[in-house]
Amino acid sequence: MTLVAVDWGTSSLRGALLDDAGRVVEERAAPRGILTVAAGGFPALFDELFGDWMRAAPGTRALISGMAGSRQGWIEAPYCPCPAGLADVAAHVVAVEPGRIAMVPGLSAENDGVPDVMRGEEVQLFGAMALTGRRDGVFVLPGTHNKWVRVAAGRIAGFRTFMTGEFYALLATHSILARTIDADAPLDEAAFRQGVACAGHGHGLLHHAFGARTLSLFGRMDAASLASYLSGLLIGEELRTQTWDADDGEVVLIGSPPLTRRYALALDARGIASRALGAEATWAGLRALHELHRADPSAASGPSGRA
Amino acid sequence: MTLVAVDWGTSSLRGALLDDAGRVVEERAAPRGILTVAAGGFPALFDELFGDWMRAAPGTRALISGMAGSRQGWIEAPYCPCPAGLADVAAHVVAVEPGRIAMVPGLSAENDGVPDVMRGEEVQLFGAMALTGRRDGVFVLPGTHNKWVRVAAGRIAGFRTFMTGEFYALLATHSILARTIDADAPLDEAAFRQGVACAGHGHGLLHHAFGARTLSLFGRMDAASLASYLSGLLIGEELRTQTWDADDGEVVLIGSPPLTRRYALALDARGIASRALGAEATWAGLRALHELHRADPSAASGPSGRA
Repeated sequence: MTLVAVDWGTSSLRGALLDDAGRVVEERAAPRGILTVAAGGFPALFDELFGDWMRAAPGTRALISGMAGSRQGWIEAPYCPCPAGLADVAAHVVAVEPGRIAMVPGLSAENDGVPDVMRGEEVQLFGAMALTGRRDGVFVLPGTHNKWVRVAAGRIAGFRTFMTGEFYALLATHSILARTIDADAPLDEAAFRQGVACAGHGHGLLHHAFGARTLSLFGRMDAASLASYLSGLLIGEELRTQTWDADDGEVVLIGSPPLTRRYALALDARGIASRALGAEATWAGLRALHELHRADPSAASGPSGRA
Repeated sequence: MTLVAVDWGTSSLRGALLDDAGRVVEERAAPRGILTVAAGGFPALFDELFGDWMRAAPGTRALISGMAGSRQGWIEAPYCPCPAGLADVAAHVVAVEPGRIAMVPGLSAENDGVPDVMRGEEVQLFGAMALTGRRDGVFVLPGTHNKWVRVAAGRIAGFRTFMTGEFYALLATHSILARTIDADAPLDEAAFRQGVACAGHGHGLLHHAFGARTLSLFGRMDAASLASYLSGLLIGEELRTQTWDADDGEVVLIGSPPLTRRYALALDARGIASRALGAEATWAGLRALHELHRADPSAASGPSGRA
């Protein structure tokens, strides 16, 4: 049975056709995130994008993760609370078209009395566990809203979101720093490491960010290097707040190569080893959920099938 | 001899006419910050705004502080390095029109190899010292770019800038939080204190800011309270990074009442007493510099009078 695996995000989506052995036959991407879809437009758009894959073999199923399962998406798949293993998430999968299309729920966590959420990353985490065999440790998913995740005994024990990607865009585009930063410059590793080291002084982002202004004002750093310095300040600030266990082993990074590379550099500066995975984690995660779901289809529920 | 005291900032300016005893005779404000003044337009604008005060009594002098002394201002008054006392700053005053109009320099500091700067706040600090008699302790000047200042033996020993006001505006206007925050809502003290307390958990602004999103997502806080919560998170994050000496005494806050009130609340939540001063600190500081300068006019230098 083939699987149409879809990661449907806010601004874009990616899909893969997986054969019965879980191999990627074909991949597609489109700038059709949920914000671009009018109310009621999801079925037609899905058919336009993936209808040929769905009809190519009898019994083909689709499993969708990401913001398409949010209140503003195709169908709401309520958050599954942490700690959560693969079976817990599979039990919260919501049928979109029973026996044909299903939606993966996001995860919620509670930190110091404040809720936290993810949608889509849970699938990447289970995929990364499957691909690496790691069942414990720290997994990091860089992006607009980064997730730092603690995995224990193969389950997602808890996580925290960091608005690092969004803060970088805000500062580089709308703040006083925008005047003197070339946000599109390629990575300057030395300036990036300098930013990571500066964040380690611990006076907080509100203070250290102003240094990107004054270094420019005093002619000590050019516009291209300042972008990397600011990126290092932000990622270094994330690292500053993490706690590590002696037996955590290497950090597993999941994301696009340009981003995971920055996290690998920042972790290395703190003496922490890491390895990186990309889109393959998404497909492996959707495949693992699909397999579990196929083994026990009664676990899936309709939109109103759960309390 | 009367003094025309002017605090000329980036977006606006304020002026006061002080009599020979230093009493405020009249105050003026105008939305004519340096960004609104075309190159070469400063002398005419100054005359338009303050010419009547300058001509009312023979020998009237003007002393200007703030961004008008920056490279983009009327005349550049190079930064005076910290530690700096009133006499050091007076010695760096630059003549705009010799014997008539003079410009106060800003201050620079060096923190962990990164420069920091202020322009205008140094005058408020000397004014606050004169008004309170305090010669040691922590002085805080809230604003777009807040200054936390260490004063020792009547001199400005060092300081750090925090982009707290600008971060609040960025997050409330341009971030994902903007959708669910009523940035103009009046202060909700309970929500503000909750934000201050949350920042104290120490996971950093990049993480805690996301809580303003999820608290809304889960219906746990309304748009008006979220604005105060975010403000508390930001000011609480500033406080988290400060160090205090046992004998620091109460913190001196200098700024507008709505802002200093928030800092007083946040400090109180940490058990730290404070007192607040407003615009009177600016006039007292310019007056003190003027008196010192008048006592030793040779200390003032022309635009090219210094190495």
